[in-house]
Formats: sequence, structure tokens, C-alpha cells
Amino acid sequence: MKARGLAALTPKAPLTSFEFERRDLGAHDVALDIAYAGICHSDIHQVREEWGPAIFPMVPGHEIAGTVSAIGSSVTRFKVGDLIGVGVFIDSCRTCASCIAGLQQYCQEGMTGTYNSIERDGRTVAFGGYSNLFVIDEDYAVHIPPHLPLAGVAPLLCAGITLYSPLRTWNVGPGSKVAVMGLGGLGHMGVKFAVAMGAEVSVLSHSPSKKADALAMGAKHFIDTSISGALKPLNKSFDLVLNTVSAYLDINEYLDLLKLDATLVVIGLPGRPYEVSAGALLNGRRRIAGSMIGGIAEMQEMLDFCGKHSIVSDVEIVEAGYANTAYERTIASDVKYRFVIDAASF
Amino acid sequence: MKARGLAALTPKAPLTSFEFERRDLGAHDVALDIAYAGICHSDIHQVREEWGPAIFPMVPGHEIAGTVSAIGSSVTRFKVGDLIGVGVFIDSCRTCASCIAGLQQYCQEGMTGTYNSIERDGRTVAFGGYSNLFVIDEDYAVHIPPHLPLAGVAPLLCAGITLYSPLRTWNVGPGSKVAVMGLGGLGHMGVKFAVAMGAEVSVLSHSPSKKADALAMGAKHFIDTSISGALKPLNKSFDLVLNTVSAYLDINEYLDLLKLDATLVVIGLPGRPYEVSAGALLNGRRRIAGSMIGGIAEMQEMLDFCGKHSIVSDVEIVEAGYANTAYERTIASDVKYRFVIDAASF
Repeated sequence: MKARGLAALTPKAPLTSFEFERRDLGAHDVALDIAYAGICHSDIHQVREEWGPAIFPMVPGHEIAGTVSAIGSSVTRFKVGDLIGVGVFIDSCRTCASCIAGLQQYCQEGMTGTYNSIERDGRTVAFGGYSNLFVIDEDYAVHIPPHLPLAGVAPLLCAGITLYSPLRTWNVGPGSKVAVMGLGGLGHMGVKFAVAMGAEVSVLSHSPSKKADALAMGAKHFIDTSISGALKPLNKSFDLVLNTVSAYLDINEYLDLLKLDATLVVIGLPGRPYEVSAGALLNGRRRIAGSMIGGIAEMQEMLDFCGKHSIVSDVEIVEAGYANTAYERTIASDVKYRFVIDAASF
Repeated sequence: MKARGLAALTPKAPLTSFEFERRDLGAHDVALDIAYAGICHSDIHQVREEWGPAIFPMVPGHEIAGTVSAIGSSVTRFKVGDLIGVGVFIDSCRTCASCIAGLQQYCQEGMTGTYNSIERDGRTVAFGGYSNLFVIDEDYAVHIPPHLPLAGVAPLLCAGITLYSPLRTWNVGPGSKVAVMGLGGLGHMGVKFAVAMGAEVSVLSHSPSKKADALAMGAKHFIDTSISGALKPLNKSFDLVLNTVSAYLDINEYLDLLKLDATLVVIGLPGRPYEVSAGALLNGRRRIAGSMIGGIAEMQEMLDFCGKHSIVSDVEIVEAGYANTAYERTIASDVKYRFVIDAASF
């Protein structure tokens, strides 16, 4: 079926209007009218080929919220009119230990990305969510609770699950002390989730102007990391530290914040490796771990959690024509806290 | 009481004969005649001030095995004639959460080292195990099972517990796949313990001459890492990787060996930080952790485990006069697999 959207036609090219074909509805497919598509920093990295050779034309977008418009003959989980979400992947091998465990994001053959990838037929280029419609295997889509503002839901499909998953993996709950490094599109979701899970949350940010927002989101403490020595009094205080900062930084200062047996989780890909001092790890049997989005079952769990706790992303809704400007502002961290494109403007 | 041993009188000086005073037996103290004192690579680092300013004269040694010769009036856990071991620390604050949990090595005030430290009275210099006798608070000593060769027991008090503890912390048992990086004083203990715990053990070493020893110790596989590409086929294979190599290396190659949610444990202090790629952690929610010796209860558990499984360190027994040469050979990895000094020669 014919679709309209935004694409980068060549590496580093600005986004322009683009018409293309989506596959016809298969027996297990669901078609959706997209309502909102979030802008993720990783869209920019891929459009600009900052993460290695990419596939062009590229229709970015992997934070997709919409309404089911048609279902294939074998679909059982969705009906026309349902609210539906699609995230960072649209398929996986379905047979490896990770897939069977519901951790499709760690598929041993590699998950199939929502864009900048080739589908598992080996030839179809996957086009992402900056578009008016989408077709997805029902097993790789999730239900969106009905009463949430849909624009704020779109970023949950990547930014949201990226923070929700480590908070669950490392068992955050009442009594946990959690630090969130950075208050941006990712960090603000971490604060909201950790607060709703009952944790005592500290935001570590070099932008003191964000203090009021952090506290309004439920953080108990705001630490201005631009002040030298500000972290020192917090040594050995936290059960979990979530690093949402994609820029390179001295990770050892933050490892020192961990209690015995506690973990610092990295979720971004800075341009160079972290320099990790063995001493910072040995002292207190500390751990540093990675976490990457979440599986389909956990995405559904997160959306149900959001429905129960009325959690959405703070968003600025823009038209398709504003996307290139939104990219520049995203790079400059000039957004509170996530751009979403109104799909009616494609 | 008067003691004899070996000391470095000034930084970087060779070890020479040294006479000094041990404290008189307190109510909670046990005196022991040392039988064997192990030579640990960290002794060399400290004698040479490679880990920062140190205290001289320094009597090194924190792998101590001997026999109780006298007990204080309040001692309940030991009697004269018992075999007794002392490890890396001789005291701690006893009141912090770590100490109460039996993890004295992570004491929040810092454990009191067996040497190169000031005791908790704030003034007494602690002299280590290269000596004929020792005095220790009974709470910081462990029982040695009677039928083990005592020379091979001494290195268990540091090298042994350093490997035993992470294997227990990360729940190694039948079915676990464990890789041990390096087959030296530390690594060979890791192999013996992991094998006895029922794991399938692989040794990753750049010294192919060690293959026969590794297999004789029970390792199933030996991978010669000096062959380019040798690790690649092992990607995503291991539940736990123990890095016993104290030299700097590219840790990301080894992180790639981890299965989903698996951990690489570092236990040494290389001279420069590890460069950890966030991608290697994100891929498979991998973790890198530190581990430092073990607490008193776990040391006792390890010694009981050694008694049950007849595990000791492979040692070369030397006289006190050979200690400086043994240091050079330790640095050159020219020992199978640990030097112990016969305390009768002090």
C-alpha cells in the first residue's frame, strides 16, 4: 500500500517528503494509521551515518503510536480501532534462547530494526515511522492503554522502554535509591518510572535550570554536576545509577556513587569507550552493565504500568516540515523533553 | 613478643632479615607459629611503592598458614595446636553494613591490611606474614582442615579466596560455563574451584605451554589467545569470565564471550583503566564487575570446600634467602604456580 513520509535520500541529507510502498497486509499483519512518531537521537545518528554504513533512502522513526486500520486473516491480538504501538524492532529470529525468553532485543541473529535494516526475507528495506501508515506483524506490536495522551505515548516505545527495562531488571522498588544521570528525553522517563516504582530518585545534571522540572517529576534530589566536588558526598549511596548521557564522561566518578554490589547501567553509545578503573569496580564489588530497549512482553508491561500511573513522555508536537529543525534542537538538548511529529502533517 | 622475618627497609629495597616486636597476646588474640607464607604479586607492588606511598620498614605477606601456639583469655574459637590461617586483612570497623554482613573486605571505613597499614589503634604498624610468628584477633582468622599439605594452603588465603568468592557470588555450579583468563597463581585456583563446583571450564591463555597443566587441573578446553581470532568462535558462550590477568588488555574482546546477562569479573589492578565499549555491554545486557578477596565467613567456607575436595595451590617452596629471586621470577610468571616461603628459614 502507498505511504507518505519523510526520508533522507542520501547520507547526511536533510529529511524531505517521500512516497513509498508498504507491504500488503499478510495473514499475521496489522495495518495502522500512525498518529505520532517520536524523534529519537538515534534517528539522527543513523541518518548521518554516524553508526556506520546505512541504507538509503531512509525513513527514520521507531517510536510509533497509532490506530489499527486493518487486520490480516490470522490476527488474534488486535482489532480495527485498537490503539497500537511499534518500537525499535519489527521482527527477530523467534527461535533462539533470547527470542524464546521474550528478549527479542537480544536475538542471537540480531533483531530486525524498524528502519535502516533489511527485513528477514533478505530483500525488503524496512521503512520507519516518520510516515502516515505502517504494517507490522502483530507479534511485534503492543497495545496502548486508551486514556493516555497519544503524543506522549510515542516516545515510550523507545525512550520509555530503554529506561523501564533496567529499572525492572535491577529490581527497583520502594526503598531503592536511584540516580539518573542526565535529564533529557531518556532521563526524564527514568525519573518518572523510578518515582512511580517507589524509589528515592536523584537527578545528576550539569544543567541547574532543569532542577525545577526534576523535582516536579518527583525526584527527591537534584545535584548540579557542574559544581566541582558535587558528587563526592554521594559516594556509596545508590543501588542503581542510570547513565542516560550519550556524551563521553569520566565514568569512575559515577561508579564511586554505587553501594556494595550495586550497578551502573549504560544505555547510550558514546563515540569512544569508557575508561573504567578496575579499582572503582573492586571497591564494593561494583558492576557496570549495558541495557538495550526491552522485549515485546516488557514493552506491554511498561505501557500497562504507564496506564496505571498516568505516565507519558513530556513532548513538543511538531509538523513534518519542522523535522530538520527539530533534529538541530535535539542535538542541542533544546527540547522538553522529546519531539513527536504529528503524522497528519506527512 | 620478639619476631624475625623479612622486610624491605625502604621503598624498592630488596628484602633483608628483620627483627621486630609483635603485640603481646590480648584477651581476644591468638598467637601462631607460621609454617608457610605465600608470595603474592601484590607484595611486590607494595614493596616497590607501585600502588602509592607505603609504610617502611615493610614486612610483606598476607597468605599465612600456621599452628596456634597460645590463646588469649577470652578466645573461644581456637585452641593451642589448631591449624590456622590469616589472609589479607586483620581487622575492620565491625559495625558498618558490610562488616555486619560478613563482608569485611568491603568495610566502609576500609579494612585493616595485614601489612603496609596502621592498626585501628591509630599508631601500630602492621607487619605481615614473612615471619616466624603472628598475633591475630581470633575473629579475623580461619581454621585450616587438618589433612591438607600446609604449604599449598597458604596461597588459599589470598589467591584462593580471590577466585573462590566471585565463583560463589555469581552462582557457578553444574552446567555453568566458566572461562578463566590467565593460568598463574590466581588463574590456576579459579580452574580448580570452578571444576570442583561442577562447571565446564575453559582456560584462555597466551602461553600454549600451559595447556597440559590446565587440562590436568580439570579444564575442558584450552584456548591459545596468542593465535589471532582464537576467541571469535567462543562469542556468547560463557556464563562467567574471570580475568586474572593483571596486564592491560582489550577487555571488549572478552566481553563478547559473555552470554546474555553474563558477567566478566576483574580481580586485578592493571596500571591503566580498561577501555570498555558501551556497545559490548549493551549487546546482551552484559556486565563487568570487580571482586576483591572475600570475608572471613567465606574464607572459612572456602577452606572447608578445599578440605572436602582436596584442593590446594600448586606451590614451589623456597627459603627466606630466595625471596628476592622469587620476586623476580613471580614478575616473569616463572613459577608453577605460587611461591611459599618456609617459615623455618626466617
